[in-house]
Amino acid sequence: MAQVRNKKIVLKDYVYGFPKESDMLLVTSDTINLKLTEDSNAVLVKNLYLSCDPYMRGRMSNTQGSYIDSITLGSPIEGLGVAKVIDSGHSKFKKGDLVWGMTRWEEYTIIKAPDQSIFKIEDTDVPLSYYTGILGMPGMTAYVGFYEICAPKNGECVFVSAASGAVGQFAKLSGCYVVGSAGSKEKVDLLKNKFGYDEAFNYKEEQDLDAALKRYFPDGIDIYFENVGGKMLEAVLSNMRFNGRIAACGMISQYNLEQGEGVCNLMHIVTKSLCMQGFIVRNYFHMLPKYLEMVMPLIKQGKISYIEDVAEGLESAPAALIGLFSGKNVGKQVVVVARD
Amino acid sequence: MAQVRNKKIVLKDYVYGFPKESDMLLVTSDTINLKLTEDSNAVLVKNLYLSCDPYMRGRMSNTQGSYIDSITLGSPIEGLGVAKVIDSGHSKFKKGDLVWGMTRWEEYTIIKAPDQSIFKIEDTDVPLSYYTGILGMPGMTAYVGFYEICAPKNGECVFVSAASGAVGQFAKLSGCYVVGSAGSKEKVDLLKNKFGYDEAFNYKEEQDLDAALKRYFPDGIDIYFENVGGKMLEAVLSNMRFNGRIAACGMISQYNLEQGEGVCNLMHIVTKSLCMQGFIVRNYFHMLPKYLEMVMPLIKQGKISYIEDVAEGLESAPAALIGLFSGKNVGKQVVVVARD
Repeated sequence: MAQVRNKKIVLKDYVYGFPKESDMLLVTSDTINLKLTEDSNAVLVKNLYLSCDPYMRGRMSNTQGSYIDSITLGSPIEGLGVAKVIDSGHSKFKKGDLVWGMTRWEEYTIIKAPDQSIFKIEDTDVPLSYYTGILGMPGMTAYVGFYEICAPKNGECVFVSAASGAVGQFAKLSGCYVVGSAGSKEKVDLLKNKFGYDEAFNYKEEQDLDAALKRYFPDGIDIYFENVGGKMLEAVLSNMRFNGRIAACGMISQYNLEQGEGVCNLMHIVTKSLCMQGFIVRNYFHMLPKYLEMVMPLIKQGKISYIEDVAEGLESAPAALIGLFSGKNVGKQVVVVARD
Repeated sequence: MAQVRNKKIVLKDYVYGFPKESDMLLVTSDTINLKLTEDSNAVLVKNLYLSCDPYMRGRMSNTQGSYIDSITLGSPIEGLGVAKVIDSGHSKFKKGDLVWGMTRWEEYTIIKAPDQSIFKIEDTDVPLSYYTGILGMPGMTAYVGFYEICAPKNGECVFVSAASGAVGQFAKLSGCYVVGSAGSKEKVDLLKNKFGYDEAFNYKEEQDLDAALKRYFPDGIDIYFENVGGKMLEAVLSNMRFNGRIAACGMISQYNLEQGEGVCNLMHIVTKSLCMQGFIVRNYFHMLPKYLEMVMPLIKQGKISYIEDVAEGLESAPAALIGLFSGKNVGKQVVVVARD
């Protein structure tokens, strides 16, 4: 059997507060057989593109309350990625297939329950790395949260915090007025000039988030796509309109705090009949074909813009992941392990 | 025209913090004609029973953000009540009709837009005062919040804070496990012995609300009927189960605070895919006939228990209202102005 080196990034210590590169470790000494055993029904993949996503922070803590298990210390970081099938013991996958889904931060991974954790890539007429973003979990998150949970109507006012992805573009295509917040001038320019947001602002430059929202939404917000939490959520609640909807898929401002920030004005939920719905996108993956059918033509026709922040090499992955929490990335943060 | 005295309770000062009796004033010098003018399309009623409800606190402040207007200083307190029609210029109401709906804290009231603010009482085979409670707005609140918003399933675990009303009994009839919290031993005994709650506890005796909820809900809470807010909501969020639903119709713990208490663990909304839906019952009043059809037989057959805390005389109304916020009332707080 061909034995090859299998470089990997493992979790060294559970993370408290802000994650550091030294919480992870590059291990270069491991090897792997590039052939599954006869009785295996797993899939062996070569990882091509790895995805850095904010939710991963939760798996790096040793605390309860996250919706997925902590990563085991000493094991490779788990995360989403695009990969190529090298060997398969599973009838749904064959050698040479391209897949995306839950893999590990290493060169080669054995995926034990492939039908539950990876999807076959059917359309390769787009950059493969897009399946870590707009064509994968983050794109599905935008789709589910915006269309399924917020049920937008033409002309409604939409606010997206930590804006960078597809939500704002979906909202524009739905005839909504859309404002996004981001953490740098470069991102704000992108939102306005490339992604077609009506307005965007740098939240770091606003002394008073409430005043900023009142400036952009003099008549209030109908739909809020919640990625941030804490003080931003508090300011948004004060500016929501009657029957407003909040889709909550994450609260990145809270992930590295020992104690979450208090939100003091939840009474707006009552007085304005707001609906705040949390969701976990993996519970909606049955809608993936429907989503791809909608989004693929939009991408191919250039009606949706998409940008990536690409880090080269597995060894660059820890810094790339940590950069998410200081907002260093511009666009979807991808790590290239191999291009084929 | 017959002119009679019209005793009333007016709002003397806008309320900051905890309301006091001296914020209201009994005025005995006013008079009223017991006949409407020829061109009126109003309804003149004699008030019989007045309802004391927590939401009224919001109307006594001079602050924005409430879902209904502040009461005008020097004008009678507005609130729900049961009344008898003395004269009518409106085709839907005639002299002698019994009605419930939005009236004022005085002996006689001219209701200017009766089709928008009062309902004719069709069934008088129950105590009339019940239309301030189980057969009126509070009953509808329980019905809408529990059945429409929380969509209960047999066997689910339900927690009701500031429990005293119908929600817990509806939940028992739906085959749920139901626990309520209240603020005195007497109320806790009522919940368990009269209203059929599976368990109840006195939140004032619990050092640690989170621990109390874990004791009663070792497997977590599916449905929370939110009346309290603040620290109770925080403890509940920690104990909600996946796909849990929170119907929020009020947050009484917050009404007399200058600054709301911070809720620090809203991330549970994301990780557990919770839905928190605020609502205002008046937007559901079209469902009143359907509700009465369901609840009236339950009351007549004794399948739903209901108790009232009755204050005698209009002059007792300010103290009765204020008592709500210290939890003095046991059962629905009613003020009898006249019995017919």
